[in-house]
Amino acid sequence: MSARPQNVHQARLLRLLRDEGPRSRAELGDVVRLSRSKLAVELDRLAGLGLVESAGLAASRGGRRSGIVRLSPSLRFVAFDIGATSIDVAVTDGGLEVLGHVSEPCDVRQGATVVLERALDLYAGLRDRGLVEGQVHGTGIGVPGPVSFRDGMPVAPPIMPGWDRFPVREAIGQELGCPVLVDNDVNLMALGELHSGLARSVDDFLLVKIGTGIGCGIVVDGAIYRGVSGSAGDIGHIRVADDGPMCACGNAGCLEAFFGGAALARDAAAAARSGRSPQLARLLEDHGELAAAHVAEAAAAGDAESVRLVREGGRHVGQVLAGLVSFFNPGLVVVAGGVAGLGHTLLAEIRGVVYRRSLPLATGNLPIVLSELAGAAGVIGGARLISDHVFDPA
Amino acid sequence: MSARPQNVHQARLLRLLRDEGPRSRAELGDVVRLSRSKLAVELDRLAGLGLVESAGLAASRGGRRSGIVRLSPSLRFVAFDIGATSIDVAVTDGGLEVLGHVSEPCDVRQGATVVLERALDLYAGLRDRGLVEGQVHGTGIGVPGPVSFRDGMPVAPPIMPGWDRFPVREAIGQELGCPVLVDNDVNLMALGELHSGLARSVDDFLLVKIGTGIGCGIVVDGAIYRGVSGSAGDIGHIRVADDGPMCACGNAGCLEAFFGGAALARDAAAAARSGRSPQLARLLEDHGELAAAHVAEAAAAGDAESVRLVREGGRHVGQVLAGLVSFFNPGLVVVAGGVAGLGHTLLAEIRGVVYRRSLPLATGNLPIVLSELAGAAGVIGGARLISDHVFDPA
Repeated sequence: MSARPQNVHQARLLRLLRDEGPRSRAELGDVVRLSRSKLAVELDRLAGLGLVESAGLAASRGGRRSGIVRLSPSLRFVAFDIGATSIDVAVTDGGLEVLGHVSEPCDVRQGATVVLERALDLYAGLRDRGLVEGQVHGTGIGVPGPVSFRDGMPVAPPIMPGWDRFPVREAIGQELGCPVLVDNDVNLMALGELHSGLARSVDDFLLVKIGTGIGCGIVVDGAIYRGVSGSAGDIGHIRVADDGPMCACGNAGCLEAFFGGAALARDAAAAARSGRSPQLARLLEDHGELAAAHVAEAAAAGDAESVRLVREGGRHVGQVLAGLVSFFNPGLVVVAGGVAGLGHTLLAEIRGVVYRRSLPLATGNLPIVLSELAGAAGVIGGARLISDHVFDPA
Repeated sequence: MSARPQNVHQARLLRLLRDEGPRSRAELGDVVRLSRSKLAVELDRLAGLGLVESAGLAASRGGRRSGIVRLSPSLRFVAFDIGATSIDVAVTDGGLEVLGHVSEPCDVRQGATVVLERALDLYAGLRDRGLVEGQVHGTGIGVPGPVSFRDGMPVAPPIMPGWDRFPVREAIGQELGCPVLVDNDVNLMALGELHSGLARSVDDFLLVKIGTGIGCGIVVDGAIYRGVSGSAGDIGHIRVADDGPMCACGNAGCLEAFFGGAALARDAAAAARSGRSPQLARLLEDHGELAAAHVAEAAAAGDAESVRLVREGGRHVGQVLAGLVSFFNPGLVVVAGGVAGLGHTLLAEIRGVVYRRSLPLATGNLPIVLSELAGAAGVIGGARLISDHVFDPA
């Protein structure tokens, strides 16, 4: 098993070095409020565990020059972000800088064994590029469905046949010989935004992911809020209207039945076939099927029907989000996921509805923004999740 | 100023005695993990501050009999629960037992000066009954609108003309000479449920108040979640439908425009005048106006139109609540407020919609219950709010 800090001071020092980078002993002592001698004891222990090391001398603050401390450059975290239609795998250093990141299409419906084997193959490719020389210190894994965080496994995930109660944490832990945590993929994206995205200085925020389906990561006081059974943020089945398209969940009028990658592909194909959109018809002919990216392409080229689809989708997302903003009063809303590639037309519509329908007190200082992390939010969040755990007293 | 604990051990001891009642020194030492001598030092200091006292000897646990400690019987908290149409004032002891509680109709639209003077008069009546002999240790105040918790004042409250930024905390603090905290009335009710209602053992729950308007108290990890600008839980203006009654907020189709005390009175009067409900027509003639209680009376007497109004109201509350349950995944939902007096017909309809429309994972173990605290939740919550503050290190 890899080394873990032994007390709260050591944990605090590790997180500080992770989030702020190398620091002088004088600066570290100021922040963690330890005397010079007590700080030296804790840093010596962390160095003994191979977690930190010295890195030269700082500029003088008036007296003796203070030694710089940094996380050990050999620290490695691994993150697997398994989506409905893709796998992302990354290796980071202790400061959660991404050293290598691969992404490829993958259908999660192939089942746990096939998908996890492919994820391990992709990791092996990164390792063989020399990105991991010694031990892996921890692995964070996201999957596109509800997760029992305590048990480290998906529970009754609707779009993941063959994954129900599959022991993902145990399986990967045995392969990589390190601590592993498993969470919902949207929670990982929220942690990614918290760590290095637009939410860096925000304690209470929402991350709305619009991919094949729609989900929400909830951050309360700088930590993921998971709810009593781990399903918090599952907003794809919130009712938009009594009448509306049937949803896979068995109800009619759910948000996901109106919008999201799957619904948009359905509506775009219908628009292509009906003759309402010659541009989409041409794209359908070229590619055999349509996805959000094609609608974005047609909308950018001035196709009125595509613009209408994007705006109507934004309106439905906005209607649900307006209610959640009134309820939760967040400091920020980040919109992310593949369909967020529809960009500012989508964002403008979402903003319009939320600013009009939520209470003024809740929207007065509320930015609603597109994620700037692109595909990296999930893997950065995975590394953050496991590093929070590993950098906690054993 | 009244006495406050000086460290976290003292604070923990006070909260334990408040929530669990008198305890032996042996039991206290076990819970707060202090040695016998250190515990004695802390208890002596608390006794010196007049906050705790000895109360005889406990039964032997095998050795020397341990002394019983209790909160000082002279400790007093005051709570003001100001609603849209009522004032409740209560005095509690240190354990938050209500020693005296008065309630009377009062229109909050009379403005801060008139309403707060009346509240102080009601308090003076309780004091003159001998319920407060010495100092008041703290006062908690609830008001029916958004509050800046930090500033202790209402901010742009829609149904409280004359209260915007009125310094409620300062005004009452000067009169009573004690620490004062001001919060939204629904948050106080949630704290009341947390302290002595059905939510006592639940960390994450929602309290839905259906009164003149509709609001929600959100408890995360045993504490009120207020959001970044203090407006979290303001669910009365969540959209139920695009078309629907106009709401006072300027939008159409808000939950409050469909249901709540004001909407129900409007719909009941319309049913009475249109001839659809002879029973409501008779009640309207007798009383000059109709309220939720009359609809409850008519529904209990078998009036089909009244039953329809209650069920339709429950359906609309259920539609909004279903979305919030999917989003927040609470461990319990408590329904309270005057309109909750409509009872089990209303509750059955709310449950039906939530259990049908929310995700199975979120509703699997989710009780939805009516509050059992009746009108006392707000004042108990007010006492809890201020005692949490006063029983915190100074």
